[in-house]
Amino acid sequence: MYCRLYRTMDRFHKPEILEAATVGGAFLRKFARVSSSSGQWKCAFCLTRDGKALKVQRTIFSECFYIMAMDELSRLTGDKDMQLEAEQMMEQLIYWVQVDPSGLGRPQLPGEVPINSLSVPMMLMCLVQQLTEGRGQEVAQKYKELGNWCVEQILQHIQRAGTAILENVSVDGSELPGCQGRLQNPGHALEAGWFLMLYGVQSGDKEIHRTAIRNFVELPYQYGWDKEHGGLFYFLDVDGHCPTQLEWSMKLWWPHCEALVAFLMAYSHTRKPELLEIFSEVYQYTFSHFPDAENGEWFGYLTQEGKVALDFKGGPFKGFFHVPRCLYMCERILDDLLENKD
Amino acid sequence: MYCRLYRTMDRFHKPEILEAATVGGAFLRKFARVSSSSGQWKCAFCLTRDGKALKVQRTIFSECFYIMAMDELSRLTGDKDMQLEAEQMMEQLIYWVQVDPSGLGRPQLPGEVPINSLSVPMMLMCLVQQLTEGRGQEVAQKYKELGNWCVEQILQHIQRAGTAILENVSVDGSELPGCQGRLQNPGHALEAGWFLMLYGVQSGDKEIHRTAIRNFVELPYQYGWDKEHGGLFYFLDVDGHCPTQLEWSMKLWWPHCEALVAFLMAYSHTRKPELLEIFSEVYQYTFSHFPDAENGEWFGYLTQEGKVALDFKGGPFKGFFHVPRCLYMCERILDDLLENKD
Repeated sequence: MYCRLYRTMDRFHKPEILEAATVGGAFLRKFARVSSSSGQWKCAFCLTRDGKALKVQRTIFSECFYIMAMDELSRLTGDKDMQLEAEQMMEQLIYWVQVDPSGLGRPQLPGEVPINSLSVPMMLMCLVQQLTEGRGQEVAQKYKELGNWCVEQILQHIQRAGTAILENVSVDGSELPGCQGRLQNPGHALEAGWFLMLYGVQSGDKEIHRTAIRNFVELPYQYGWDKEHGGLFYFLDVDGHCPTQLEWSMKLWWPHCEALVAFLMAYSHTRKPELLEIFSEVYQYTFSHFPDAENGEWFGYLTQEGKVALDFKGGPFKGFFHVPRCLYMCERILDDLLENKD
Repeated sequence: MYCRLYRTMDRFHKPEILEAATVGGAFLRKFARVSSSSGQWKCAFCLTRDGKALKVQRTIFSECFYIMAMDELSRLTGDKDMQLEAEQMMEQLIYWVQVDPSGLGRPQLPGEVPINSLSVPMMLMCLVQQLTEGRGQEVAQKYKELGNWCVEQILQHIQRAGTAILENVSVDGSELPGCQGRLQNPGHALEAGWFLMLYGVQSGDKEIHRTAIRNFVELPYQYGWDKEHGGLFYFLDVDGHCPTQLEWSMKLWWPHCEALVAFLMAYSHTRKPELLEIFSEVYQYTFSHFPDAENGEWFGYLTQEGKVALDFKGGPFKGFFHVPRCLYMCERILDDLLENKD
């Protein structure tokens, strides 16, 4: 994130930002990769201050963020090795997702059915956009097939005749039984929504672009917005039952970040005033609830009613990512809107 | 639980209760055990309806409940094989806890330090009491050393000159750095409290019994009770910071169950009126908030303010255990108090 800000925004093109990015990157490169029992590289989710792995998740997400960081940093430093490392980790990740997940360390159990979880193709799509951005035709071509695969996987989450986005579906795109199958995560759907919009613009696929706005931006807001207290729910059950996640009704910072980007982008692409109105509603809620007026930064976790439930600014799952990416994206889109005023 | 009710309480000595217990036990025995990669037996945390393992935790708790069920059922059926199986699983569990945890399936990471987590010796102690109850001197002798070890491990959680029970301490009994070290779980402390009281009575160790009441019953209530809204917090930070668990401020059914048993038992052993008063306060909160007056059973999860946050009666972590055990224990203690009125 520091690299991206340093590289692309004049007011962050400062030596201290560069310093933070390179020092952080060197730490990650030295310590974050750990070899797993399968002999493949995994990335630690959590390290001690002196770089010893403390927790390694059996998912792909730490590796995704590692790739993102290494790719961005290699753009600053021109370090070809680092870029290669990001690409190699990406290859491994694709192998885990498309061929054999056993290297993630989760034993296959007889009762498990393979699942298409929205977060996986969504994150891969984000990485495709990261790795190909401004790298020219050859790299774009390299990841084209994967990008298309991600879109296909994401679209499988449109269920119930287009009236719902479900977080987990079967690998052939049908609804799964039980609470896992009924789970909805409006923040993930909205995040996937703006990735899909970008894909639609880049590929010139207008149908995907329309689907992105209708099913992954407007729809998650319709079912995910709390009509009583405002804000987006963390989890919901498509049949209106209570989700099993204890935190389901909490209002988290990141779904609001993703909603702001999604609605502003959707408006800038369509100029439909109703999308700007929803952006404004999300903006009002977000900026009146999450920022800490006294000490800066955002709180991350509110109760359903909008009271701060956890008052730390950084924690196991809240880092320097969603807030700066949201502000960065919104500033870019707003600049663009001002430049292209009718 | 069905076995215990059938075996020990006249009004539950009914064929349908026996049937439920034996059918459930047969299912567990046939399907719950799964062989792990280490060749050791693990128990599934979650199975499909037709008995396929869906989730296996890398902890000891599913195995603990399996042992408890098999021991109780073997008392009903007189099945020596089943009793042996419970004891064999217990041996393995002791090996994981005292010798080598690698069979649990969690790879050792370089940044990890071994931890004494209160739940582990507490659960083992519960099993010692289960396996030895009414079985005579030989069995009591067999588990005596383990029982003493559990007590020693539990007492290590008394920290900060006796003013706090910390959930995680180092294996040599000192405080751990960071939020993990500062974590408090009042419900676990209270549950350990009544196990310790039983141990104190059985062993005739009055000092342990006093410590149980002072440090594991009165103290967790003092720091764990929400003075504003009533009820016991799920998690707290000993320095008053915000815990990192999103659900820290919620009021869960089971800590209240354990508090009811702990305070009623403490009162029955000491006849100190202040303990009965706290029991009464916990009782008032519990019975005015958790039971579902309309449909029976208890809700499991309330917001800090006492509103039902999740309305299901059974879920991934809420089964038929804490509520019936609490009611069973309290009824026993109350009967005993009535019989031994001064």
